Amino acid sequence: MSGGARARRGLVGGRFAAELDPAIDRVNRSFETDRRMWEEDIRGSEAHVRMLGRAGILPAAAVRRILRGLAAVRREMGEGRFEVRPEDEDVHVAVERRVTELVGPDGKRLHTARSRNDQVATDLLLHLARASERLRARVVGLERALVRLAARDGQAILPFYTHLQRAQPVLLGHVLLAHAELLEDDRQALLFPLDRCPLGSGAGAGVGYPVDRRWVARALGFRRPSPNSLASVSARPEATRFAAAMAHLATTLSRLGGELVLWTSREFGFARLGDSVSTGSSIMPQKRNPDGAELLRARAIRVHGALLALLELPRGLPLGYFKDLQEDKVHLFRAIDDLEAMLDAATAMLGDLTFDPARMREAVDDPAGHLLATEAADWLARRGVPFREAHEAVGRLVREAESRGIALRDLPLDVLEAAHPAFDATLRRALTAEAAVRARRAVGGTAPANVAREIRRWQRRLRREGRPQTWGDGR
Amino acid sequence: MSGGARARRGLVGGRFAAELDPAIDRVNRSFETDRRMWEEDIRGSEAHVRMLGRAGILPAAAVRRILRGLAAVRREMGEGRFEVRPEDEDVHVAVERRVTELVGPDGKRLHTARSRNDQVATDLLLHLARASERLRARVVGLERALVRLAARDGQAILPFYTHLQRAQPVLLGHVLLAHAELLEDDRQALLFPLDRCPLGSGAGAGVGYPVDRRWVARALGFRRPSPNSLASVSARPEATRFAAAMAHLATTLSRLGGELVLWTSREFGFARLGDSVSTGSSIMPQKRNPDGAELLRARAIRVHGALLALLELPRGLPLGYFKDLQEDKVHLFRAIDDLEAMLDAATAMLGDLTFDPARMREAVDDPAGHLLATEAADWLARRGVPFREAHEAVGRLVREAESRGIALRDLPLDVLEAAHPAFDATLRRALTAEAAVRARRAVGGTAPANVAREIRRWQRRLRREGRPQTWGDGR
Amino acid sequence: MSGGARARRGLVGGRFAAELDPAIDRVNRSFETDRRMWEEDIRGSEAHVRMLGRAGILPAAAVRRILRGLAAVRREMGEGRFEVRPEDEDVHVAVERRVTELVGPDGKRLHTARSRNDQVATDLLLHLARASERLRARVVGLERALVRLAARDGQAILPFYTHLQRAQPVLLGHVLLAHAELLEDDRQALLFPLDRCPLGSGAGAGVGYPVDRRWVARALGFRRPSPNSLASVSARPEATRFAAAMAHLATTLSRLGGELVLWTSREFGFARLGDSVSTGSSIMPQKRNPDGAELLRARAIRVHGALLALLELPRGLPLGYFKDLQEDKVHLFRAIDDLEAMLDAATAMLGDLTFDPARMREAVDDPAGHLLATEAADWLARRGVPFREAHEAVGRLVREAESRGIALRDLPLDVLEAAHPAFDATLRRALTAEAAVRARRAVGGTAPANVAREIRRWQRRLRREGRPQTWGDGR
Amino acid sequence: MSGGARARRGLVGGRFAAELDPAIDRVNRSFETDRRMWEEDIRGSEAHVRMLGRAGILPAAAVRRILRGLAAVRREMGEGRFEVRPEDEDVHVAVERRVTELVGPDGKRLHTARSRNDQVATDLLLHLARASERLRARVVGLERALVRLAARDGQAILPFYTHLQRAQPVLLGHVLLAHAELLEDDRQALLFPLDRCPLGSGAGAGVGYPVDRRWVARALGFRRPSPNSLASVSARPEATRFAAAMAHLATTLSRLGGELVLWTSREFGFARLGDSVSTGSSIMPQKRNPDGAELLRARAIRVHGALLALLELPRGLPLGYFKDLQEDKVHLFRAIDDLEAMLDAATAMLGDLTFDPARMREAVDDPAGHLLATEAADWLARRGVPFREAHEAVGRLVREAESRGIALRDLPLDVLEAAHPAFDATLRRALTAEAAVRARRAVGGTAPANVAREIRRWQRRLRREGRPQTWGDGR
Repeated sequence: MSGGARARRGLVGGRFAAELDPAIDRVNRSFETDRRMWEEDIRGSEAHVRMLGRAGILPAAAVRRILRGLAAVRREMGEGRFEVRPEDEDVHVAVERRVTELVGPDGKRLHTARSRNDQVATDLLLHLARASERLRARVVGLERALVRLAARDGQAILPFYTHLQRAQPVLLGHVLLAHAELLEDDRQALLFPLDRCPLGSGAGAGVGYPVDRRWVARALGFRRPSPNSLASVSARPEATRFAAAMAHLATTLSRLGGELVLWTSREFGFARLGDSVSTGSSIMPQKRNPDGAELLRARAIRVHGALLALLELPRGLPLGYFKDLQEDKVHLFRAIDDLEAMLDAATAMLGDLTFDPARMREAVDDPAGHLLATEAADWLARRGVPFREAHEAVGRLVREAESRGIALRDLPLDVLEAAHPAFDATLRRALTAEAAVRARRAVGGTAPANVAREIRRWQRRLRREGRPQTWGDGR
Repeated sequence: MSGGARARRGLVGGRFAAELDPAIDRVNRSFETDRRMWEEDIRGSEAHVRMLGRAGILPAAAVRRILRGLAAVRREMGEGRFEVRPEDEDVHVAVERRVTELVGPDGKRLHTARSRNDQVATDLLLHLARASERLRARVVGLERALVRLAARDGQAILPFYTHLQRAQPVLLGHVLLAHAELLEDDRQALLFPLDRCPLGSGAGAGVGYPVDRRWVARALGFRRPSPNSLASVSARPEATRFAAAMAHLATTLSRLGGELVLWTSREFGFARLGDSVSTGSSIMPQKRNPDGAELLRARAIRVHGALLALLELPRGLPLGYFKDLQEDKVHLFRAIDDLEAMLDAATAMLGDLTFDPARMREAVDDPAGHLLATEAADWLARRGVPFREAHEAVGRLVREAESRGIALRDLPLDVLEAAHPAFDATLRRALTAEAAVRARRAVGGTAPANVAREIRRWQRRLRREGRPQTWGDGR
Repeated sequence: MSGGARARRGLVGGRFAAELDPAIDRVNRSFETDRRMWEEDIRGSEAHVRMLGRAGILPAAAVRRILRGLAAVRREMGEGRFEVRPEDEDVHVAVERRVTELVGPDGKRLHTARSRNDQVATDLLLHLARASERLRARVVGLERALVRLAARDGQAILPFYTHLQRAQPVLLGHVLLAHAELLEDDRQALLFPLDRCPLGSGAGAGVGYPVDRRWVARALGFRRPSPNSLASVSARPEATRFAAAMAHLATTLSRLGGELVLWTSREFGFARLGDSVSTGSSIMPQKRNPDGAELLRARAIRVHGALLALLELPRGLPLGYFKDLQEDKVHLFRAIDDLEAMLDAATAMLGDLTFDPARMREAVDDPAGHLLATEAADWLARRGVPFREAHEAVGRLVREAESRGIALRDLPLDVLEAAHPAFDATLRRALTAEAAVRARRAVGGTAPANVAREIRRWQRRLRREGRPQTWGDGR
Repeated sequence: MSGGARARRGLVGGRFAAELDPAIDRVNRSFETDRRMWEEDIRGSEAHVRMLGRAGILPAAAVRRILRGLAAVRREMGEGRFEVRPEDEDVHVAVERRVTELVGPDGKRLHTARSRNDQVATDLLLHLARASERLRARVVGLERALVRLAARDGQAILPFYTHLQRAQPVLLGHVLLAHAELLEDDRQALLFPLDRCPLGSGAGAGVGYPVDRRWVARALGFRRPSPNSLASVSARPEATRFAAAMAHLATTLSRLGGELVLWTSREFGFARLGDSVSTGSSIMPQKRNPDGAELLRARAIRVHGALLALLELPRGLPLGYFKDLQEDKVHLFRAIDDLEAMLDAATAMLGDLTFDPARMREAVDDPAGHLLATEAADWLARRGVPFREAHEAVGRLVREAESRGIALRDLPLDVLEAAHPAFDATLRRALTAEAAVRARRAVGGTAPANVAREIRRWQRRLRREGRPQTWGDGR
């Protein structure tokens, strides 16, 4: 604890004889965290004060003056000129303090008929709605990068993996669009509709004034006022739900990261990150490290931790407001920032990535891979052999081919026939990667016609979406 | 590791010369976990095999025989007669094994054009849809218990709390409905629409047969087949989303638990759990412990842990199927069971709970509580004093009243006037709990008329809802 | 992504044709996090370069020049004069870059025979050892505050609680020392001995120079060099262990917080936080909120989250170094800062806390509490009645007393005798709080003599401990 | 909720008029979880009752009878003959109930001077001490498997990886011993010394009898009685610490799992799991999946979740006993079982693993890998070129070699000299994998002599350790 000076009280002076102990001030103060909601705080105050005027709770002149003050604070904040003072323990106090300095005693009327409890709950929902837009726009950017790669190189054939063992041949475009598909699912889950507006819930019991909660809710873009004031200040299910959507997006990004780490390893060798997105070693001059991809894996944990914290913070607390709940913003805002950085890094990497279709093809054709064993079993099954029996017969063939070190298609006919009498020489025609992918032409399968159609569908969809924005200066 | 005997292989025999090591078999085997999906597994197999028949992939006779076998297995499972065998490593293997025993070689055709990867993904979605119904019905039961209490005792006045300090008077009905409101929010989030059907994705590349995925999807109640086979076996965002909804419900229940622990403490004394839901001490004969309420707090952690596990399991894995993903069912099923037990316990406690309105009223009227201080500030604000100034003046009055050990309303008039010249004797009329709650009559406030209206709205809503069901025997 | 300018490369230039993409640079750059280890980084470099000199790997003149440069950087850092440059991606690069500017080409020899991998592992252990000292000193400060309160007010009698139901009378000193006891346990667990020094492990294979790892280990205060270079850069069990100790301390602090929240509620009323550690409400003038105590509960989650992240970050990674591991510092440093703030806040609260022994005594004597029921059962058991039979008899008495609304000791003799024939009038003498606490005089019990002895033991122990320090400016 | 019948009360009958609601009974009952502590529960009761006899609290005859009863219950439990009854809500109740049935009213004296609170705390510590032994023995078994492989194949050279990019050549033995080193660290952390015995703490205030806590502590193998009865029943830091050690071991095992998944992939191809530890696919006949290795990754999450739960369960609770704490056993016991299964699976896999030194060597010699670039930089540095300058020069060489598609050692001399004038033809001799590993001969480096010495040290150490045991039947 550095200074010996006690911290000045913000807006709650009358009650206390002593200044706040700096150690308590340090844990209590939230301005550094909640300042980024300044825009929403001012917007909420504007709607609130307008409503107070319409409802006859404040005189029109006071309303005008407060609005003028709020507009001035918005400019100061927006231009980075706002001077923070020691008593500004949070953004709400800071704005009210400054409005009062600017417009005089009418500023002290701003907090009529509301509490910080309903105010901060409203600010947070507005802020998350904005964060939702920004994150979703970034997801679109990443989908665009994936679809661009799919259109450029998607016809290459590579193995897909189960248990990190080569499974069957698929088109690269199929894999890239699978990532896009999962991202799109996350993007939908990130939608943040403004439904129940907390403003007017006061500290939790409602407020003792004839406020018009419907008007203020709609003015701020909500569908309706919250139906129970106590529920409204006690819990923030929308925020936790948003955190859950962010957490799943983080997992999805981590898997793209994991894919890139493998693909760019020398052993897989399917892709190469360009110099602009590769990092080096302080000691090994040859290294080109996929740090960005690794961090997609590692940062996901942070976002997961944020969700866990939001769920645990109110665990066991009775209804009402508790300081514990205030911590939610630290976790939410860190998660938003982490995800933005992750999305930007992922998009940057895909923007400087080249594939090596020849290495992919080698992996597909590797005689020891037996990537077409399922085709052999299906070949039998199509000829009426029960699939389980076909599977067993091909299993034995694989053991035989392995011991000879050759591919299934190169086994002599008598070995095939010994494994199952239904086999004949035409089997070999079925055992090509091209035949294998072409056969998977039912909805969702990896057949080239399917993948091409999906790429076109994605391109149409993405053409309809906008571009990412950036936060205002004042964040 | 007990037995020395190697475990018999299930359906994948041809490939391997040796039996499975028991230590690997122990971690690999999932029958004990996934057996509860037997009904969905059979339902999925029926739809699959019907489709194979319609598409001409299997002959009609084989389809009929397999369907007969599946029906027989359903009866055996439903009646608890199904005999598990060592090679039944999971429910899918067990069902196919038994069908084959019952109907002969045609059973070996059941796995044509599918993989366990798409099969288990489909089973799981179907199972979660059923769990969703069951959990939501139980939430309705708990809402019912809350609304019943609100209708019975809801007009009692008690303090609500912020920071566990008494804040303002509210109606008990307002608090009970706040819990119901939060539960209803969770119930909506638990909805589990069947959208994308994974069946037909095969191991991940699609299947090499002309399957009709649209037909099978609709037959199982899904809206459509999944659009990318690889995405479909690689991730289960619906399951994680469901776990997130369960996790938030667990938090909501934990808060009801926390409320009950406080209310039934001797210090609060607002409520008393009946004998049927109270537990005793092995050493202290006087104890009546709210174990059930405490466990609502504690078990919530388990459900949160399940969500965290679902998010972390696939972190960093490339697309494709990995055994890691199989663990999701352990976590999901435990969470479902925990939540059911929690919901049942909560409903039981509310069914044997009596309130003590006199103790509540004492807490409201406690002169040292100053529960009406906000009323005094509002009184001034309504007379044109800026709220912040009014707040400060009342803050000073509270200090004065505290030092005299009396209530605000009992302060002499000259003290009031010294604190603020706008005060006069009519203030005292405003300083009653009844006036305070009546004033909060805007939407969502605690005014008696509001609470009565809300109770009626809830009663109407609940009348439309059904009753909880139970799982079949075979779970 | 804001700027279009590419980020300049730090020390790894030769390999790459392009500058780093800003989005990758943003996630890759760690200077803001690891700059707080500057002192340890310089200390490590000094030991390393001295060793290189002694081993004949660098000429003495180069060693002298580098040491001079390092000393200059230490002054710049310590005095806040160090100028950060865009290419300073981490603290190691920054120090080497600046040394080279200051002493010329010899600075480029500093990284001989080491890698950032072993360098950062060493820095981190040194830094955690310092954090351990600081945290432990703060724990002592908090223990001191507890023991001071115990010595001042510890003889007051209050109920202790199980299940938040009143259980038995105990001395306040017993409760305060129980907190101290748990804290001391945590303090021991926070010890951070410097055992295995990673320096000399290079990137993971060891270094190709005749370095003297034993010398450098001892010079830095470690017991020995790490025995396997690969293990040394792949995992940091000491850091995770330290995080686990921090996590448990956070839980312990959260419980002190929970205790304070309850004690200072009006319902319990056992304690009152002074003005310097109480906070107010923006709307309710009467509030004195224990925000600090609530934050002890809430921040514990952050520290738990840090531990979880450390365990999950390397999960599933093969041995070797991965960028994922770098995230550990973010989590560790945040946890350290959070804990320091929590310890300071807890100590501040205990420094301005007054107890209300009269309210405590009321709770003990409350006839409805039956706090002495165990004494009645023990009274019987001491007279030869099997305890279980005694427990049942007193259970019936409690029901009887409850229905009459009186204390056990006020039940008529015939009622007592009806409950159990062994009861007689002398029972009443045993049924006082004083007798109850006095009886618990075996080791660890709450008897006044025990508590007094424990207070003296604590005072002696604490007299031997030092005072907390603060970090240097440069953190 | 199945039956309508109310649950019978266990030992706390006198107080309650009604039977327990089945929904509460379901969440309250812990017998299924804590029955595995039966042996410790009986052991604790024996010591307790002996002490009661020695201290004159119970007559010798009663002590003898109770001991006889306990011995009989031990036999019944051990032989699986113990009949559970509906009122057996936990193992403590079950044992006391049965003893009383067997020996008559003296059984009702068993609970004299103790509470379930101190009893269960003691049982748990004793049980964890046993679990610690068992887990540590299994870790030794796994270390043995690693050292055996190191002795057999450890001289093979393979790349080690940073960022999953090839870094430098190391000996396979160095990698295997790195895993062993980390395991040994975890094994030490799992040590579970019995220090403070809770027995005699009663419900939390101590007990009102002249018990001899020192005697009973020593009789059970503890160092001393716990010094504060309230601390003793309120928190279980030893258990959380043990869970933290288990959690880190789980991470270590997950990394071995990750290594095996990579090594056995076709792309790496460094190792092959034998048939006895490989699993197949339901659809792809060629698959040999490392399910066991994947589950090492996935199950680690469960163990981490257990630790998190132990930290969060008591968060924010005041001191005293709460039902929440009882949940700790569920989490602890699951974690123990998961870890045992993981350790067994890991040991089984290493027991049927073959390496492919030729594939390793290919990876080392791959001209595109430039694994010896550090050697080239070191070569320059040893000739007086500042390392940073050497690093840059070699970085340029790597770019040149890459563009020519050859190894560094195959670059023409003039190209070398153009990169740095200090280069000459003798460089090529340094650029072999053998030279690179040999050069790393300082402590902890990968030089063959080092690795051989370490293998011998490990073999000596392991010879001193015992063999794993199994739990008794009654678990």
